[in-house]
Amino acid sequence: MRNAIVLLSGGVDSTTALAVARSKGFNVSALSFAYGQRHKSELIAARAIARDAGVRDHVVIEIDLRAFGRSALTDEIDVPKDRSVEEMNAAIPVTYVPARNTIFLSYALALAEVREANDIFIGVNALDYSGYPDCRPEYIAAFQEMARRATARSTSGEHTVSIHAPLIHKTKAEIIRIGSDLGVDFSHTISCYQASEAGRACGHCDACILRRKGFEQNGLSDPTRYVESEMVGS
Amino acid sequence: MRNAIVLLSGGVDSTTALAVARSKGFNVSALSFAYGQRHKSELIAARAIARDAGVRDHVVIEIDLRAFGRSALTDEIDVPKDRSVEEMNAAIPVTYVPARNTIFLSYALALAEVREANDIFIGVNALDYSGYPDCRPEYIAAFQEMARRATARSTSGEHTVSIHAPLIHKTKAEIIRIGSDLGVDFSHTISCYQASEAGRACGHCDACILRRKGFEQNGLSDPTRYVESEMVGS
Repeated sequence: MRNAIVLLSGGVDSTTALAVARSKGFNVSALSFAYGQRHKSELIAARAIARDAGVRDHVVIEIDLRAFGRSALTDEIDVPKDRSVEEMNAAIPVTYVPARNTIFLSYALALAEVREANDIFIGVNALDYSGYPDCRPEYIAAFQEMARRATARSTSGEHTVSIHAPLIHKTKAEIIRIGSDLGVDFSHTISCYQASEAGRACGHCDACILRRKGFEQNGLSDPTRYVESEMVGS
Repeated sequence: MRNAIVLLSGGVDSTTALAVARSKGFNVSALSFAYGQRHKSELIAARAIARDAGVRDHVVIEIDLRAFGRSALTDEIDVPKDRSVEEMNAAIPVTYVPARNTIFLSYALALAEVREANDIFIGVNALDYSGYPDCRPEYIAAFQEMARRATARSTSGEHTVSIHAPLIHKTKAEIIRIGSDLGVDFSHTISCYQASEAGRACGHCDACILRRKGFEQNGLSDPTRYVESEMVGS
């Protein structure tokens, strides 16, 4: 059985990427990151998702934010509300965190060496997150090239590292369809940029809007629980 | 004045890389990492070196070791003693830490974005550390290619990231000569893989042997203080 590392944030995309890796027969080590306060509910979600998926193990790395500086996911900046997809894609969002996927993938590369894995899965998506450079195919390809020169394992001549981004060209609706077909229980996933500690979503940030649209387009009911009760079932 | 990030471990190479960056007129943010117990004296050295060099600021990031697993720099593995340079280069050393430079450079890339810097300096050396894949020119070039696709700043069209490894083709003796010529006070630097908390070197690990050889080849006296008093001035 081949080993793989899956970056798992606890959202729809990474949870579906984990399901894809498991469906391909990989023995998965899930890797999550603890950084800042807003996303604590995501980590709780990630633990439940990893357990449900039958992973080999789940590693949670603490990330020191001193290099990141100011960002809406870590500081008290207002997350934009009720934007259209066109507005989301017009510029790099304030929720952008400098070099985040590069740091996440670098830790995944370290864990891949230790777990004797050649395959790293990441649930990035170039359509819904076109404002983030580190979600684009050319970035993923360049990271893979770098990774193949970076470690003892990847330069041994016996192994080569592959970065899998199976959802990179999919819409949110397609991702939800793929996950549903693979049996993902989306009730554990959290998408909201400012979810409450109890895991309830705001319903208004970009991530909430994209998620709701994706479920609607599939004619599926979204199990998200919202902070405002009037959002339930919308 | 252009901004730069310099990775600073507190050893001879990174201290010389910092002096090179300052000599080229860069306004430097130094970046160091705290990981594990053995290298605490290195951080004390790094703080003194950064201050002496007149950096803009010095950021110290805590690294969570859970992704790294077993390594001589973090666990209680015996560091090899009294090896020849040929023995050092015969295989990847047990002091190798998976993907370490990739993780360090990734944080540097994040800090470069926040500090509005396009230039990152790293004191890697392909001659003395030929067993480490992430010290080789092809690795540095691949990281630079990836970095140019990774951040908002580097993909803006107005800036491009450069990874400078000014010492990559230099011998230890040449590095010490370059540093001396730039006025580096090597008494603050620590090279030893197992330096004591007071900053005294063992005199027997690969790093101690390479350092001593480098000073000898320049006819310079090495200000290193050793744990065993009979090593002083050897």
